[in-house]
Amino acid sequence: MKTVKVYITLKQGVLDPQGKAVQESLNKLGFPEVHGARVGRFLELQVDEHADIDRQIKEMCAKLLANPVIEDYQYTIEEGVAQ
Amino acid sequence: MKTVKVYITLKQGVLDPQGKAVQESLNKLGFPEVHGARVGRFLELQVDEHADIDRQIKEMCAKLLANPVIEDYQYTIEEGVAQ
Repeated sequence: MKTVKVYITLKQGVLDPQGKAVQESLNKLGFPEVHGARVGRFLELQVDEHADIDRQIKEMCAKLLANPVIEDYQYTIEEGVAQ
Repeated sequence: MKTVKVYITLKQGVLDPQGKAVQESLNKLGFPEVHGARVGRFLELQVDEHADIDRQIKEMCAKLLANPVIEDYQYTIEEGVAQ
C-alpha cells in the first residue's frame, strides 16, 4: 500500500477570494505581516501498489480531483499508510 | 519575505464524509485500487521576515486557520515568494 499526497492549488493569476478573505482576517486578528494567502486542497489517498501509479494519479486528477482549467496539482508517493 | 505552507488535516478517527465520497467516486471511475481518501486544506501564506515566525504561525492556526478540536496541522517555511 502506498500513500499518495496530492496538493491542489489555483493557478497563478486566478483570483482567490477565499485566500483574500483569509489574509484580511489574519491582518485584522493582529498579523499585519501576512501579505498574501492562497487556499488549496490537500488529499491523502491510500492506493494499492501499482506498476503505473504515476499515470493512474494523473488520470485521477484529470477526471475528478482537480479542475485543469484553473488548478495545478502536485503529488508525492510514499511507502506505507500515513499516520 | 517567506512562504509558509500550512497543511490542515482531520485528526485520525474523525469521520471524513468528503474523503469517503472521493474514494467511492474514484472506485466508480475505474480506480478500484484506491482504498481510502482523506481531504484536507492547503494554505500558502506570504509572510514578512519575523523573528518569531514559528510562534506567529501557531497562533494563526489556533485563532483562524485550523479547528484544534478535530484538525491537525503541519507547516513548512520557505525562503522567498512561491511561484
